[in-house]
Amino acid sequence: MKPSSDQQYLSGDRSGERLDSQIAFVAELDKLKSVLRQTWLVDASRQETDAEHSWHVAMMALVLVEHAAEPVDIGKVVRMLLVHDLVEIDAGDTFVYDEAANADKEARELAAADRIFALLPADQAAPLRALWDEFEARASAEARYAAAIDRLQPLMHNYLTRGKGWLKHGVTADKVRALNARIADGAPALWDHARALIDDAVAKGYLAPGPDGN
Amino acid sequence: MKPSSDQQYLSGDRSGERLDSQIAFVAELDKLKSVLRQTWLVDASRQETDAEHSWHVAMMALVLVEHAAEPVDIGKVVRMLLVHDLVEIDAGDTFVYDEAANADKEARELAAADRIFALLPADQAAPLRALWDEFEARASAEARYAAAIDRLQPLMHNYLTRGKGWLKHGVTADKVRALNARIADGAPALWDHARALIDDAVAKGYLAPGPDGN
Repeated sequence: MKPSSDQQYLSGDRSGERLDSQIAFVAELDKLKSVLRQTWLVDASRQETDAEHSWHVAMMALVLVEHAAEPVDIGKVVRMLLVHDLVEIDAGDTFVYDEAANADKEARELAAADRIFALLPADQAAPLRALWDEFEARASAEARYAAAIDRLQPLMHNYLTRGKGWLKHGVTADKVRALNARIADGAPALWDHARALIDDAVAKGYLAPGPDGN
Repeated sequence: MKPSSDQQYLSGDRSGERLDSQIAFVAELDKLKSVLRQTWLVDASRQETDAEHSWHVAMMALVLVEHAAEPVDIGKVVRMLLVHDLVEIDAGDTFVYDEAANADKEARELAAADRIFALLPADQAAPLRALWDEFEARASAEARYAAAIDRLQPLMHNYLTRGKGWLKHGVTADKVRALNARIADGAPALWDHARALIDDAVAKGYLAPGPDGN
């Protein structure tokens, strides 16, 4: 039994090789709890972790599904959101407004996906990897809705922390609007909500206006 | 729009009352990231949060479902595990080996469930609350499998941290075996695995033996 941590798991091979692989994978998942995002908790006490974010967006997807642009298989959306950030175990969180870091993000994340999903038995690795590929490509109604939720959650946190992440990084409203416009592809009503949040954030000074003054 | 935090959300009622309730609920969920469990991360750097645990067990349930004692609706299991600790936003995490705290746990958690699920529109509150009730009662194949995963995860963490939680609280192997035996009801193969972990933990000094020396 080989979790990728350097600690020995069970001595001897008491359980089957298949279960060993599964346990190695689920032990590896623990590392997503140590990847910090550029999103603060609502009480602004600290940044949230990728594992916390993954849980939060899965719950949000369940609760907000009536706002999806098209009918979706909600079970698939939830599975997609549970795995969507696994690659960040190796690749780290790439801040969405950091253009330099985003240049090699795809290559780093592909290498991570190749390593991490391969911990599982092949028949389980393939469908989970396919979910991640579909999410990245926004190639289905489920992926577009999942992506909308994945964008709405940090926007909501930024608003509720009076712009903590936005102000720290000097992000402006035009950039926030441009990068979050994809919410409309997955959930138009949530994009209306998001736009109202952005406008109100500018009005309250939580977010600097863009060059056009809005 | 009223998240239960004391911060104002949107001024004016630009979106509907139904969306307002949904957003208030998903903003409230953030608080589960501030509830600490008596389980350490595998690298022993800190205790995990309830939100992280909820994500981890949902992923484990997906990966280990072939070991369920009976056929289960995995989508339902995942939803159940995503919501199973929501009550701890109000009630806090009750350490499973703390007999005094467990005496009034049910009353605290019922009051929490009454408050938290009621943030949602009634047609959404009822099915989510029903999932939590079903989990608590272990009243279905899904609930028994979910409960097995919910027990296996901290046991795995205790093993991988060389007994950090067990040794800190002076827990003994007989208690660990008694409290985790329910894993067998939901996933017999995982109980075999868990028993092997417990035996090995005693052999390695991660866990004190019980009065019978084992």
